Amino acid sequence: MLNTLGNLLSLTTFGESHGLAYGGIINNFPAGLYIDLEKIQLELDRRKPGQSAIVTQRKESDIVKFLSGIFDGKTTGTPIGFIIENENQKFKDYDHIAQSYRPSHADFTYDKKFGIRDYRGGGKSSARETINWVVAGALAKQLLPNIEFHAYVSSVGEIFCEKPYQVLDFSKIESNIVRCPDAETADRMIAKIKEIKKQGNTIGGTITCVIKNVPTGIGEPVFSKLQAELAKAMLNINACKGFEYGSGFCGAKMTGSEHNDEFNTDFSTKTNLSGGIQGGISNGMDIYFRVAFKPVATIIRPQNSIDKEGNPVNVEGKGRHDPCVVPRAVPIVESLAAFVLADLFLIDKTRNIAQL
Amino acid sequence: MLNTLGNLLSLTTFGESHGLAYGGIINNFPAGLYIDLEKIQLELDRRKPGQSAIVTQRKESDIVKFLSGIFDGKTTGTPIGFIIENENQKFKDYDHIAQSYRPSHADFTYDKKFGIRDYRGGGKSSARETINWVVAGALAKQLLPNIEFHAYVSSVGEIFCEKPYQVLDFSKIESNIVRCPDAETADRMIAKIKEIKKQGNTIGGTITCVIKNVPTGIGEPVFSKLQAELAKAMLNINACKGFEYGSGFCGAKMTGSEHNDEFNTDFSTKTNLSGGIQGGISNGMDIYFRVAFKPVATIIRPQNSIDKEGNPVNVEGKGRHDPCVVPRAVPIVESLAAFVLADLFLIDKTRNIAQL
Amino acid sequence: MLNTLGNLLSLTTFGESHGLAYGGIINNFPAGLYIDLEKIQLELDRRKPGQSAIVTQRKESDIVKFLSGIFDGKTTGTPIGFIIENENQKFKDYDHIAQSYRPSHADFTYDKKFGIRDYRGGGKSSARETINWVVAGALAKQLLPNIEFHAYVSSVGEIFCEKPYQVLDFSKIESNIVRCPDAETADRMIAKIKEIKKQGNTIGGTITCVIKNVPTGIGEPVFSKLQAELAKAMLNINACKGFEYGSGFCGAKMTGSEHNDEFNTDFSTKTNLSGGIQGGISNGMDIYFRVAFKPVATIIRPQNSIDKEGNPVNVEGKGRHDPCVVPRAVPIVESLAAFVLADLFLIDKTRNIAQL
Amino acid sequence: MLNTLGNLLSLTTFGESHGLAYGGIINNFPAGLYIDLEKIQLELDRRKPGQSAIVTQRKESDIVKFLSGIFDGKTTGTPIGFIIENENQKFKDYDHIAQSYRPSHADFTYDKKFGIRDYRGGGKSSARETINWVVAGALAKQLLPNIEFHAYVSSVGEIFCEKPYQVLDFSKIESNIVRCPDAETADRMIAKIKEIKKQGNTIGGTITCVIKNVPTGIGEPVFSKLQAELAKAMLNINACKGFEYGSGFCGAKMTGSEHNDEFNTDFSTKTNLSGGIQGGISNGMDIYFRVAFKPVATIIRPQNSIDKEGNPVNVEGKGRHDPCVVPRAVPIVESLAAFVLADLFLIDKTRNIAQL
Repeated sequence: MLNTLGNLLSLTTFGESHGLAYGGIINNFPAGLYIDLEKIQLELDRRKPGQSAIVTQRKESDIVKFLSGIFDGKTTGTPIGFIIENENQKFKDYDHIAQSYRPSHADFTYDKKFGIRDYRGGGKSSARETINWVVAGALAKQLLPNIEFHAYVSSVGEIFCEKPYQVLDFSKIESNIVRCPDAETADRMIAKIKEIKKQGNTIGGTITCVIKNVPTGIGEPVFSKLQAELAKAMLNINACKGFEYGSGFCGAKMTGSEHNDEFNTDFSTKTNLSGGIQGGISNGMDIYFRVAFKPVATIIRPQNSIDKEGNPVNVEGKGRHDPCVVPRAVPIVESLAAFVLADLFLIDKTRNIAQL
Repeated sequence: MLNTLGNLLSLTTFGESHGLAYGGIINNFPAGLYIDLEKIQLELDRRKPGQSAIVTQRKESDIVKFLSGIFDGKTTGTPIGFIIENENQKFKDYDHIAQSYRPSHADFTYDKKFGIRDYRGGGKSSARETINWVVAGALAKQLLPNIEFHAYVSSVGEIFCEKPYQVLDFSKIESNIVRCPDAETADRMIAKIKEIKKQGNTIGGTITCVIKNVPTGIGEPVFSKLQAELAKAMLNINACKGFEYGSGFCGAKMTGSEHNDEFNTDFSTKTNLSGGIQGGISNGMDIYFRVAFKPVATIIRPQNSIDKEGNPVNVEGKGRHDPCVVPRAVPIVESLAAFVLADLFLIDKTRNIAQL
Repeated sequence: MLNTLGNLLSLTTFGESHGLAYGGIINNFPAGLYIDLEKIQLELDRRKPGQSAIVTQRKESDIVKFLSGIFDGKTTGTPIGFIIENENQKFKDYDHIAQSYRPSHADFTYDKKFGIRDYRGGGKSSARETINWVVAGALAKQLLPNIEFHAYVSSVGEIFCEKPYQVLDFSKIESNIVRCPDAETADRMIAKIKEIKKQGNTIGGTITCVIKNVPTGIGEPVFSKLQAELAKAMLNINACKGFEYGSGFCGAKMTGSEHNDEFNTDFSTKTNLSGGIQGGISNGMDIYFRVAFKPVATIIRPQNSIDKEGNPVNVEGKGRHDPCVVPRAVPIVESLAAFVLADLFLIDKTRNIAQL
Repeated sequence: MLNTLGNLLSLTTFGESHGLAYGGIINNFPAGLYIDLEKIQLELDRRKPGQSAIVTQRKESDIVKFLSGIFDGKTTGTPIGFIIENENQKFKDYDHIAQSYRPSHADFTYDKKFGIRDYRGGGKSSARETINWVVAGALAKQLLPNIEFHAYVSSVGEIFCEKPYQVLDFSKIESNIVRCPDAETADRMIAKIKEIKKQGNTIGGTITCVIKNVPTGIGEPVFSKLQAELAKAMLNINACKGFEYGSGFCGAKMTGSEHNDEFNTDFSTKTNLSGGIQGGISNGMDIYFRVAFKPVATIIRPQNSIDKEGNPVNVEGKGRHDPCVVPRAVPIVESLAAFVLADLFLIDKTRNIAQL
């Protein structure tokens, strides 16, 4: 459904950068699950601004408050409503931005589509919306306790984590502020981001996400293939420019004899270029995918632009900005992946008469 | 909605490789549009097997028959039902395949999920399903007569069309059997596919799609961003492994000062790394994206595999197969792009009080 | 989703009175169910025109052909496509009707909405659409083998079956052509319909539907309450003017002390004015509801009407018509009830962590 | 979509009787509409408890707070989030109720379905949920400024407003506390409710809703007929047992020659037994329908019941309760009707190529 995430388990959200609050409603979440609220807050803290030297210094405590759907610590099966209040919405003078279009922002397209926009901090187009997704994703993770979601920064600009995910120690992801489990690469990434930040510039990057212990059978055969639902979720993240899973774009260079994953006799496969999905349905192997993020459009430099009438103006970002979005996007990617899997996991429970 | 394409304008489909027919229902298509049936058939012919030396030699006439929703040559606003009969379903002996799992096919995952599968020609997992999508896309194109959809093969294996799309002559796409508008590259691609075919092997490739004359305002702000809907549609195509739009994965290497698209005073932009979409909404510039396809899993070689009980077996593709899927996927990519745009175009008509 | 029945299990349909065929796609039907095709045909035969002296004499064999989704006699979990070909579409001269609006038909509203309509036999607005619903409902019944659906004609005009459903013998429903299980009332209904038919007139009636052996827990708490989904389905039937369940409109005259259903210690209730549903969720008692149908608008008499320009014209139904719709609507009501229950039954399988 | 109201324009809600707040998200509301917040609050005040002697004395100020989607007084086209805080949730001892099932309440069905329920004040099953619907309906009314929605109490118990709606003065609806525009009938209704209240009992009633100035063309041809969407919305209201529109159940007693609505030459009809809808689509005449409400289950008397283990217990409502739900349900019925019409009105804007 339009502007809603999920098919059965669903997330509907609201909120603007400088409005009173963000929030959302999770519908059709199963009843009877004990919810660990601290774990949810931990995920929000991972996404939070101001957590390290390489992310925006906007200060928000980002505390989620659940308003319904949880009783005596357990989900009740009824809608889970939640809000996160905005604390740091400075009602400063936005009049200059109100009339100007920042390059590669949504200012122009919102105005053309809606004829009106909340220009304070980007309004609805702000990536702060993703806070809602982290709440929902954190709940989805608890619904799928055996499935592990490991996202990490696999590149910043030209700096790539060259090691395959199989040799990385995911327990190291949170050991550094850029969230790359390879310490040496992480150091270079952090240095790069600091340099970029000093220049008032921004830089892109990629995130790799590995999902382990996925049961077979998740995903639907026609228009709701597992990879399609993952791709859709990821491409909704602000600044996301691409998605590939399994062999991805590299697979397009290969031949069938190289690419086919031979079975072991236990139904696992010797290789996993398929990325854990065949015909849109999980096969029990690791699911892995990679997401590309462009550099954030807000830079702390003067840029030529135009106003609403098409007159040339000069715009310049100020103060707080994210020099590189990928460290904070790590929990967002995991959250969306978890929500997509939870939705399709629940649906799969209805797809075979033997289970009913 | 699950296993349905589109939010308002919707496509629901059925059909299996060796069933009696494919078909679908297009719901909520606007009334009063004169339909050029020949144009629809032309799109089907572009997708048809047996059309050239580098695609599968399966023979199907692939004639679509409309059963409802069109009257006196015009759409009536009521559901458009259509079928395409299967002619070439040979009911030969599939018993060996019935018990075996072909590597990198959906055989195993279908069996695990559903406990049953139509093993004849892959059943539902066959890419023949895309014939339905071409019918729907051809109708969507007619709904958007001013928007141009140009998809072409931009790589086969390691052979890339190095020229940017801006210098290509799209009228040349259909001038060669591989559907690459650059003649010299096309020749090399064709030679490569022939070589691969001779080896009984298959090879991957990419398709680039350029959409021109898109009005501003198409796309929705939260979970139905234009790029997200495009990505979802593409990742549903069999063998698709990745999607990127605008600067894509390359954009992840860039800095903000390089990547931002400066406005012209007519609201167009000097560069278009955004790929025609900002904040999920079209900005009037060209939309362009690239889709990766892995090599087809069916190869004409013996491969080690297993049967349903996990016993080692040998499987071998026979006779007709597509050595490279991308030439025939060109109209499929265009069709899905057109359907996604038509859906969001209609929705956009309801989003601004000034239009109502 | 718009013009689709069901939330998870879904039915999308097409077809017009004088088109080539009716048909539909049932999506997300569970895999592995052995389908008794004869039972489906039996339901279609119950709905078929020409089956008795008191229904329309249009002759159609109404044979359903399944095109996908069933393999080796079992559902595969993939979309079930089906068609029913129209045999009796006489392409006679409809030009007079093409320009005229028949009273209380959809001619005028279709023209105003769509600017075009298939005027042959009412086109899409024909009740022949319900043939699709019977196919889907017959499948849904097989998915819920323990639940019994008993619909019967409870009134024709002023003739009511006064006995409460509890004392009726449902096995008698098919023992007479009007489908009222009380023989004496049935006789009077049949006589009334014959008299009305002789006059070229039509008459309304009601259908009562009783659903037995419903498990507890079916239905959703907010906007998908079981009674709401039933009401929606029923009000989509042509000529349906009202829906009530349990105590219905009579309940509006009662007091709480009269109306409350006291529990037995086995969780059943002594009375069942609730109609088997509390808070939108089944409680295990019989569900029963009543549906009102107006008299068919087509009468074999001259009527004053207007043409497209508002000029007075005279219209007159000819030949074949249904003097009373309720006997043939009995399987339609059952079918929709079964489909609604099947959809919510599947959804309920995902709503409680203890079941997952 | 499950537990969401609307197809394109949609409402998703949360909240429990004794939770912190109710609230909802309205998605896909058009941009650019100036919102009169006072009018919204007025509708909430009409629904509010404690407003007169014949409704529950629970005290709530029921102030809605909009959290997003409105900027500079106008809708922005992005999700409209709102909350209404609960003020009067007394955390008294609910332990007795926690273990007991009240007759004709949702206690038992929630427990069976979910295995858990918020027993404080009925939790999610409380009719306080309708407060969210009034907010959404009040917005929908502003989107459809020319359409008039007039609901009124047409019966309380056996006391009926015998006059047809055409002779009633709708401006009198708010002139008495029972919301029946006929003063004499209103007096008798009020006396009856006071009597019932004194007895600690409750009583049912009906509401008639008349919608004037509806444009032609609203409603969809297959499964989203206007009357079906209205019926579904109404049957979701707590205590609602039935819906009929136009001639309703009376129409089932009539003949076609009596029931058909003859056209005038201006395309209006001389009679309007159709209730303003033909073939599921509005014809421009008044839409009118009637909704039945059973008596509220909570009565201030001892009742036999059972606990979770099936042991006999005695339950008794205390203090505040609604002796008759219909006066407060008047704005709820109007709100849902307005929301349904707004949704289908927006969809209709996309259904005809001449409008695009």
